[in-house]
Amino acid sequence: MLEKVDLSKKIEKAAYKSLISDLEVKLGELQRQARDLAIPVIIVFEGWEASGKATAMNHLILSLDPRGFNVYPVNPPTEEERFRPFLWRFWIKTPARGRMALFDKSWYRRVLVERVDKILKKKDWSKSYDEIRFFERQLAEDGNVIIKFFLHISKKEQKKRFKKLLKNPSTAWRVTKEAWRHHKQYEKYLVAAEEMLAKTDTDYAPWTLVEAQDRRFARVKIFKTVAEALENKIAEVRDLKARDKPAKSSSVHLKSLGSSILDKVDLSLSLKKTEYEKELDRYQKRLREIEHEAYTKRLPILLLYEGWDAAGKGGVIKRLTRSMDPRGYEVVPTTAPNDVEKVHHYLWRFWNKIPKAGHIAIFDRTWYGRVLVERVEGFCSEEEWKRAYREINEMEESLVNFGTVLIKFWLQIDKDEQLKRFEARQKDPHKRWKITEEDWRNREKWDEYKEAVDEMLFRTSTAYAPWTIIESNSKYYARIKVLKTVVKEVEKHL
Amino acid sequence: MLEKVDLSKKIEKAAYKSLISDLEVKLGELQRQARDLAIPVIIVFEGWEASGKATAMNHLILSLDPRGFNVYPVNPPTEEERFRPFLWRFWIKTPARGRMALFDKSWYRRVLVERVDKILKKKDWSKSYDEIRFFERQLAEDGNVIIKFFLHISKKEQKKRFKKLLKNPSTAWRVTKEAWRHHKQYEKYLVAAEEMLAKTDTDYAPWTLVEAQDRRFARVKIFKTVAEALENKIAEVRDLKARDKPAKSSSVHLKSLGSSILDKVDLSLSLKKTEYEKELDRYQKRLREIEHEAYTKRLPILLLYEGWDAAGKGGVIKRLTRSMDPRGYEVVPTTAPNDVEKVHHYLWRFWNKIPKAGHIAIFDRTWYGRVLVERVEGFCSEEEWKRAYREINEMEESLVNFGTVLIKFWLQIDKDEQLKRFEARQKDPHKRWKITEEDWRNREKWDEYKEAVDEMLFRTSTAYAPWTIIESNSKYYARIKVLKTVVKEVEKHL
Repeated sequence: MLEKVDLSKKIEKAAYKSLISDLEVKLGELQRQARDLAIPVIIVFEGWEASGKATAMNHLILSLDPRGFNVYPVNPPTEEERFRPFLWRFWIKTPARGRMALFDKSWYRRVLVERVDKILKKKDWSKSYDEIRFFERQLAEDGNVIIKFFLHISKKEQKKRFKKLLKNPSTAWRVTKEAWRHHKQYEKYLVAAEEMLAKTDTDYAPWTLVEAQDRRFARVKIFKTVAEALENKIAEVRDLKARDKPAKSSSVHLKSLGSSILDKVDLSLSLKKTEYEKELDRYQKRLREIEHEAYTKRLPILLLYEGWDAAGKGGVIKRLTRSMDPRGYEVVPTTAPNDVEKVHHYLWRFWNKIPKAGHIAIFDRTWYGRVLVERVEGFCSEEEWKRAYREINEMEESLVNFGTVLIKFWLQIDKDEQLKRFEARQKDPHKRWKITEEDWRNREKWDEYKEAVDEMLFRTSTAYAPWTIIESNSKYYARIKVLKTVVKEVEKHL
Repeated sequence: MLEKVDLSKKIEKAAYKSLISDLEVKLGELQRQARDLAIPVIIVFEGWEASGKATAMNHLILSLDPRGFNVYPVNPPTEEERFRPFLWRFWIKTPARGRMALFDKSWYRRVLVERVDKILKKKDWSKSYDEIRFFERQLAEDGNVIIKFFLHISKKEQKKRFKKLLKNPSTAWRVTKEAWRHHKQYEKYLVAAEEMLAKTDTDYAPWTLVEAQDRRFARVKIFKTVAEALENKIAEVRDLKARDKPAKSSSVHLKSLGSSILDKVDLSLSLKKTEYEKELDRYQKRLREIEHEAYTKRLPILLLYEGWDAAGKGGVIKRLTRSMDPRGYEVVPTTAPNDVEKVHHYLWRFWNKIPKAGHIAIFDRTWYGRVLVERVEGFCSEEEWKRAYREINEMEESLVNFGTVLIKFWLQIDKDEQLKRFEARQKDPHKRWKITEEDWRNREKWDEYKEAVDEMLFRTSTAYAPWTIIESNSKYYARIKVLKTVVKEVEKHL
């Protein structure tokens, strides 16, 4: 593929000047339209060293309003970044709606330099293709325009450019030993790049090969490609808005559900107080040890809690953390998204919070809000929550691929038990604040929520991230089962 | 001071149990009240190793609603953190209004371990006292409750605790070589701690010495101190709200202004096109070299631009960056704060954006908005903008202490020139978007803005961070003067 590219393409100076100045004006306009339509844009620059990525990018951004974009140079990951799944540092940089993010090199580092330089084992970098496709598809489906450039020059041209850079003392520094080493490995990189282009060229995030031997030609092609991609998306969004009724029926097709999982939960399970206290003490002690072992082994742990209002999530988490070292764990409560979170993909705020290796993140409610409260209350479209099952499974797969111990708890109580607890809270002046109008309103929708929970349990119980259902009518029983599950699961990984 | 502390204080178990369970309930209530009143709270835990900081902190947070606080363990700074002023990593973690931030160790690391272990030179750590006081005062004046604990145990007690920890294989890891080394240096730490307590015990951020020999006594004292501090602040805020008219007159007293600086600016200065093009080319080439030299020398550079609407900030920045490498600079535009920014100190969002060593941040408008638009439009109180001059000078001092090259530009045009440019923009279909109703409204307040600008230039021209006024009626002249100033100033530091 790359070897067949015609690198002799050129544009003469005079033609270039008039072309590019029109394109600059046009791009400025398109950026403003995209901003007004809240379209997020991601532009990736990959390509050979000295192929002109940085200069092309600088040229591109000069025609843009600086209030509307960010540039991210991608270097080898820092320690903070290595302690998290490789996509973490890119997820958190995805643009807000209406903004642009430009990446000088990108997540493709994973299957280029980290592959060729043998920083990663094959089993690790080869898994990245899936994760990258998931990542890009999720963003595209959320409305992102994704434009990916690969700037191509021949080995001979690269050598020529290196030599030219070396002649000037103020540019010589750019030709590092590493650059020469990569130059010598040109053919190996070619194989990696070919494979990357083939495996990640999708309709939602296509690659544009840029013949970069002639800088003018390259720039014009880059400008034109960006302009065209923006125009298409702008037209699409306007078209959608112009329709009388937006297309409401979902294009996501899901297999039909099995029977109710919740109906089969045995809520009569309970535990005596004496037994409870003995077990509690035992597991709490063990947890503190485990926390430390996980730290020294740099094991990332993510515990997540979902459940009915008043099912006892808070109480469970309190017992879990009582003896733990606060430097090693964090409780991450999930409330309504703030306005920065609202203008990103709904998974963005959770990616921001995933635990780093050696640490424990305890999520009190999570991304499952998408298929529970957001579904039932209509905070997102049918299309969106139906899409979410797959997105969530993919995100959890990324976490598990990285080695995260991911334990998912559903705390189940029945409707009578909930009522009893609500009423008890109302009566207790110290607990009254815990119960709100919203809790009562949610309770009225018990059946709708039940359907959503059943569907969630069915569609997101994967081999790598199964749900653990906690029978919670008995608080003692529930707390001990949670503690025991955490201890057993983490121990498997130590 | 520390040696005279009575470490024999104790609380018996029975008394403790009833005391602490009352305090737990109380603290939960106070946290909710503080949240409802939008009071931010900072709690710092300092003290000897094995003095029980982490356990005390964990106990404290168990009585709090996890949706309302964050815990920050403070370790040696990472590379990202070392590339910025030492307060950076703490500034960005300051709590939003209504939230709590708990620090296990803190910015005081600077004058404790980094002093005693000789990580810093005396001239560096000794400067930190001022910066720390500025930091805490700014936050306190913005409404933060700041509670600082120093947990004190004797050298003998520390040794006893180390030995006990060593006996248990699951805690032995906590007694590191470093811990023993620090133990041997107990007396040196004592000197450092004494000095720290003396120099940073202020009415807005007082230290509480905690006799930590007896864990129960320590916990009760910590709980009581937090409860009392919250109660006082809550009462103060309620009192303020209850008053018929809030106290409007400012308590900040400023020296009166000198004569107008703006009136003396010579706006007839200009430059011929041929001269302009020659100079432009020369300085742009030099800038690219400088950008690289600054990178290799890890010099942080912050250029900031303020000026009248249509004074040409955007054009100046475009010429500045045209030949630069986009990986080395970032244009940081300042627009209205979003809702996350609004619930923090107004300097918070700028601290988040300061350049790291080796990089160039180009601010298009800045923190000076506080004493310009926010003052004139009444977006903040008189008290607040009057206080801001000092806060800004202090922040800039922190940046300069760190070695940042800080260059501040005011782009000056006269009222006629502005009108000409506004009208030209209106006529040009490609530039019409640049001019808004707001620009015209601001123009009507020219005199008020002029007064604010003059006062700003007068009060924030410091020896370490002077203003450079750019005579901008001639765009050519202005652009070259900016480029030249940047080149000359940065060269002084290379």
